[in-house]
Amino acid sequence: MSKRMKICINTGGGDAPGLNAVIEAVTMAAYTRQWEVYGIKTGYTGLLNTEEIIHLTPEKVDGIASVGGTILGSTNKGNPFMMPVCNVAGECTQRDMSDKVIENFRRLRFDALVAVGGDGSMEIAHRFAEKGMPLVGVPKTIDNDMGGTDTTFGFDTAVSIATEAIDRLHSTAKSHDRVMVVEVMGRNAGFIALNSGISGNADVILIPEIPFDIEKVCDKLMENELHGRKYAIVVVAEGALPKGGDVIIKSPAGPGRQHVVLGGIAESVAKEISQRTGKDTRSMVLGHLQRGGSPTTFDRLLSLRFGTSAVRAIEMGKFDHMVAFQSPDIGLVPLAEALKIHKRVRVDGDTVLTARDLGICFGD
Amino acid sequence: MSKRMKICINTGGGDAPGLNAVIEAVTMAAYTRQWEVYGIKTGYTGLLNTEEIIHLTPEKVDGIASVGGTILGSTNKGNPFMMPVCNVAGECTQRDMSDKVIENFRRLRFDALVAVGGDGSMEIAHRFAEKGMPLVGVPKTIDNDMGGTDTTFGFDTAVSIATEAIDRLHSTAKSHDRVMVVEVMGRNAGFIALNSGISGNADVILIPEIPFDIEKVCDKLMENELHGRKYAIVVVAEGALPKGGDVIIKSPAGPGRQHVVLGGIAESVAKEISQRTGKDTRSMVLGHLQRGGSPTTFDRLLSLRFGTSAVRAIEMGKFDHMVAFQSPDIGLVPLAEALKIHKRVRVDGDTVLTARDLGICFGD
Amino acid sequence: MSKRMKICINTGGGDAPGLNAVIEAVTMAAYTRQWEVYGIKTGYTGLLNTEEIIHLTPEKVDGIASVGGTILGSTNKGNPFMMPVCNVAGECTQRDMSDKVIENFRRLRFDALVAVGGDGSMEIAHRFAEKGMPLVGVPKTIDNDMGGTDTTFGFDTAVSIATEAIDRLHSTAKSHDRVMVVEVMGRNAGFIALNSGISGNADVILIPEIPFDIEKVCDKLMENELHGRKYAIVVVAEGALPKGGDVIIKSPAGPGRQHVVLGGIAESVAKEISQRTGKDTRSMVLGHLQRGGSPTTFDRLLSLRFGTSAVRAIEMGKFDHMVAFQSPDIGLVPLAEALKIHKRVRVDGDTVLTARDLGICFGD
Amino acid sequence: MSKRMKICINTGGGDAPGLNAVIEAVTMAAYTRQWEVYGIKTGYTGLLNTEEIIHLTPEKVDGIASVGGTILGSTNKGNPFMMPVCNVAGECTQRDMSDKVIENFRRLRFDALVAVGGDGSMEIAHRFAEKGMPLVGVPKTIDNDMGGTDTTFGFDTAVSIATEAIDRLHSTAKSHDRVMVVEVMGRNAGFIALNSGISGNADVILIPEIPFDIEKVCDKLMENELHGRKYAIVVVAEGALPKGGDVIIKSPAGPGRQHVVLGGIAESVAKEISQRTGKDTRSMVLGHLQRGGSPTTFDRLLSLRFGTSAVRAIEMGKFDHMVAFQSPDIGLVPLAEALKIHKRVRVDGDTVLTARDLGICFGD
Repeated sequence: MSKRMKICINTGGGDAPGLNAVIEAVTMAAYTRQWEVYGIKTGYTGLLNTEEIIHLTPEKVDGIASVGGTILGSTNKGNPFMMPVCNVAGECTQRDMSDKVIENFRRLRFDALVAVGGDGSMEIAHRFAEKGMPLVGVPKTIDNDMGGTDTTFGFDTAVSIATEAIDRLHSTAKSHDRVMVVEVMGRNAGFIALNSGISGNADVILIPEIPFDIEKVCDKLMENELHGRKYAIVVVAEGALPKGGDVIIKSPAGPGRQHVVLGGIAESVAKEISQRTGKDTRSMVLGHLQRGGSPTTFDRLLSLRFGTSAVRAIEMGKFDHMVAFQSPDIGLVPLAEALKIHKRVRVDGDTVLTARDLGICFGD
Repeated sequence: MSKRMKICINTGGGDAPGLNAVIEAVTMAAYTRQWEVYGIKTGYTGLLNTEEIIHLTPEKVDGIASVGGTILGSTNKGNPFMMPVCNVAGECTQRDMSDKVIENFRRLRFDALVAVGGDGSMEIAHRFAEKGMPLVGVPKTIDNDMGGTDTTFGFDTAVSIATEAIDRLHSTAKSHDRVMVVEVMGRNAGFIALNSGISGNADVILIPEIPFDIEKVCDKLMENELHGRKYAIVVVAEGALPKGGDVIIKSPAGPGRQHVVLGGIAESVAKEISQRTGKDTRSMVLGHLQRGGSPTTFDRLLSLRFGTSAVRAIEMGKFDHMVAFQSPDIGLVPLAEALKIHKRVRVDGDTVLTARDLGICFGD
Repeated sequence: MSKRMKICINTGGGDAPGLNAVIEAVTMAAYTRQWEVYGIKTGYTGLLNTEEIIHLTPEKVDGIASVGGTILGSTNKGNPFMMPVCNVAGECTQRDMSDKVIENFRRLRFDALVAVGGDGSMEIAHRFAEKGMPLVGVPKTIDNDMGGTDTTFGFDTAVSIATEAIDRLHSTAKSHDRVMVVEVMGRNAGFIALNSGISGNADVILIPEIPFDIEKVCDKLMENELHGRKYAIVVVAEGALPKGGDVIIKSPAGPGRQHVVLGGIAESVAKEISQRTGKDTRSMVLGHLQRGGSPTTFDRLLSLRFGTSAVRAIEMGKFDHMVAFQSPDIGLVPLAEALKIHKRVRVDGDTVLTARDLGICFGD
Repeated sequence: MSKRMKICINTGGGDAPGLNAVIEAVTMAAYTRQWEVYGIKTGYTGLLNTEEIIHLTPEKVDGIASVGGTILGSTNKGNPFMMPVCNVAGECTQRDMSDKVIENFRRLRFDALVAVGGDGSMEIAHRFAEKGMPLVGVPKTIDNDMGGTDTTFGFDTAVSIATEAIDRLHSTAKSHDRVMVVEVMGRNAGFIALNSGISGNADVILIPEIPFDIEKVCDKLMENELHGRKYAIVVVAEGALPKGGDVIIKSPAGPGRQHVVLGGIAESVAKEISQRTGKDTRSMVLGHLQRGGSPTTFDRLLSLRFGTSAVRAIEMGKFDHMVAFQSPDIGLVPLAEALKIHKRVRVDGDTVLTARDLGICFGD
């Protein structure tokens, strides 16, 4: 009979629909094995300040799979290899607290950690694994830019929310002969813009992988007008860039609009279109709407499969690995390998071809 | 047996979920009576340029009740009592084209018009009625600020979309200990902010009817923090105003963000909160998401009831009236009477009391 | 300054979307007044077995407004004026336990009760009020058949779910030239069938208030076929009845299909249509889908308003009353008065007229 | 420069969310290439009665991707290799009309056919391809039981609808301490039951691939009760079977309840549970709700990718193949190869393991 383990789970980085489902799945799979399972609040920091550790039970996770956010509270609390430490005078320096994390992990007699997070968190996880911590990663990225896995939880939800928003914008754009420019998430990768743009029947999609020429975009809109379609939907990834060396358009620092930012890519593109075509043009930023709230059924299921697979990986002793969606199965990839890949939209892939076949313009 | 009439329908002003349902209902109720029914594109302008008039049939309206927008195309084309008329040199003057509208209406042998629109459109409708045009109004306002009717179509949809957005923002605000400031529609009346704020479990609601003190808002957020609730949702109507004479906060010209606008009320409020409390604060503008797309079931039904009631009013010869929701029935009110009322949130009404009882702060 | 009260809340009868929102609102409104508030599990029975009483706090009700069901657990546990009491031999008699309920209510020093429930529960509440118990009722009925209030929570959700289901059935009926017969809730009143049938673009609606002739229904379907519409949607309230004295169609005992029931009204109607017209005809029963799960925004808001209004009624000492939606306000009606009315669809009301104008057949 | 082709598309078998998106994609991809494209109504039969062929244009398919059903009308009209042909006396025989289909295809100068359908339709398509017809298949199966492709359109929608229904049933089951038995689609394969059961937090899942012992199911429910969970959700695939040789439970002939069927698997299972455990048990059949209506975003995108890929396959001359989802790409598999595989739930796959880890019982 296998050993009764004592495991813990943390969640790092931004919010993603499905986090609670991972937590539920890890808890239930541990409970089924009569293991003990604990949740570490505020990422790795919780292992520095061990008051932040809570016992997870079936009662505590009952029904949370469909609830947005994470019951482990605020998730974005820094890198233990470079912790800001401040003295009473307010002067801060960065210190490597990783040994302290490992020490506490051992002192609390944990047998393994499930680390949920984006590429930053997986990088940290890998470093801990190399220092001997037995852990399994669960990849999380709304943008779908992580390597080693077909997709991750949160992405299908984000694409669905963006598509639904584009659907709504269609009818008002059509009623008023307007151009609507919608900014969706995707700083390095254009997956959300591409998928929601296709599903939402956009006229133009601008993504980081295909630098755009604003003239080509305007040509498309004027050509549409000749064919009787006076309105248009332009979907822009936040990291979309114009062709040529100079980045003339500032992109906001993150999803949503921080109050210090005066204009993102959508606003700039809208301004250009308005000036060049004379068309009534409006912009909007979907921002946080894309990463909050209840996950789609697809993401719920994927999260639950990820969570239980992580526990099975622990059972098999497959540490320093990450669970991955290798459709239709869940597999395991070494963290080192997954971290080497920065996934981007393939510009000759069939999704881009689909968009072109549907008459969608990328401005190239 | 009653006469076989020939009627027409126009839609004025902005988009509203339910417009197509009104068109479907008018068409079907006319068809049931073996009347002829026509749709006038681009508002009253369509009666100046009579190529814009289309024959409506059951086939053309089949299934449109649940579709956003309006099949009568662009709806926002000006006031026939003050039409801009431009000469070849590009000099424009305003001309009263109302007689031409009436002349065409008669020449085309229409017996009655169903005029769908907001208070601007109802004002115009009333002037036409006074000039002898047989018409019945159907009120349309997302903001719910029209008099004479309990509510209009589009409002329930807007409140639902805003509530769903607030639900999504909750989980990400909670995960990151953030203050999220959400701007919803409502330039003169705070109904959308009030209803979605209550339904969405907001901490603060700012509406035009209750001028706010930003200090009181910040007090509420800090008090919440003492009780362990570190995040907050602030819902702001676009027409919300701070106390005191000077309007220090610029409001955008309309829903959505026009590219010339550098900051709306949400951004200003977010900036103030961030500076005064030091909390991580983000803003977002829901804008056009609130007025596009498929109507809720409530709005579908209300629109269908409005449309058939307008046809029954024509049958009874009750012109210069507007259909109105007098729950649970549909009634008729004289346009002149409805236009006198500018509906606002009652600051001592039970909805505001409900918000206060739930612990929601209005900043007063 | 007003007294600090100690109040309690119970919920009786079946599930309804919005129950938790009422509980949240009562709790928060009590908390705002620094009152104590308790939840009584399993209806009045909880006052017999006082272990079933839980202390309600803001933490316990945080976020429950959008969650289906009721945190007060099973709600359907009988009438204290006629409690089944069984001896060891398994012989049961009915006993009046109402004095015991009142005794416990006083012993626990409660100042008032908020009684949430349908007409059965309101009847019981009124009897307790007459015996001197200070209480305020909150009406609950999915079917919308309670008097004194324009509508109650749960109804909008049920109509929305039914409409969404009918929307889905349309496309499959159309793809296969089928007649789909859908049974919705409504044993005595046809409001759900009527409203969802209109919103969902049904061809036929059968309700208890308008006895139907199956021949007329079939005539309508064949006439549609002549006009090229080969498929049809028939919406049937569970209490719909054929014309004439004999009830030839058995109706199931409740929503959903109890396993002892071999056929409900939808199945019977489908069978008749199939035999008489030769058309491919299917039936389905929506059952419990209509009363479970998350409430619509409309119902969330109405429930929250009902809950806080009940607390304000207690504050004012308006006992033996029921909160009521008197659009657009919440009012109070004496329980005795509300109980006199059994609300039914008005057969000459504008909703029925709307249906007829849209070409919908009632089989009359 | 490539030849301007003239292609056609047909859709066979039952309704599936995404059919219209495939039609839109094929039309747009043809239009982009300046090809002509036609839609064949009522499956292959349309090539026998060539009045059923319509010209497809961008206008005709604009916006249909999100609409349920198929604009090519009734889809279920039989196998041209075995057409029922009836004489005036009403005597019918089966005739092979395939040569006539091919003759008309050539006479109308079509260059290729896109055949959309389930395994029956793909079988027919392969036979036509072997007789020299240039065609490409697009797989369609709600149940997800087709080989050669990770998944097909319609499946994600069906799982989502079932999950949403289960979510709703949870709250009412919980409020009343009830066992709810829900029957979902899946005659040969349990994918919908498995995925929606996991996502919807079911207690028991019964699928064709794992014969069940009703005693084990009841044991699970009683064990839950000991742990304080008095209610339960049992999800049953329509093709689920009890262990042992004799099939004692009749399964209905198809989704939905045909009026000749007195009881499906859900009703039988509910009856058994009720008798053996004494618990209040109800059953419901989701039926047609699962295959009608608007597709999820996932299915919309997959359908659009399938449709354009089929056109690219024609361009490349890859006939007698079927487009397939080989995540994350769309590939092509020979029809002969795809038809060999009858996909079933792998009983040792990670999805089943996930369910077991979550504590879900399969009755084995």
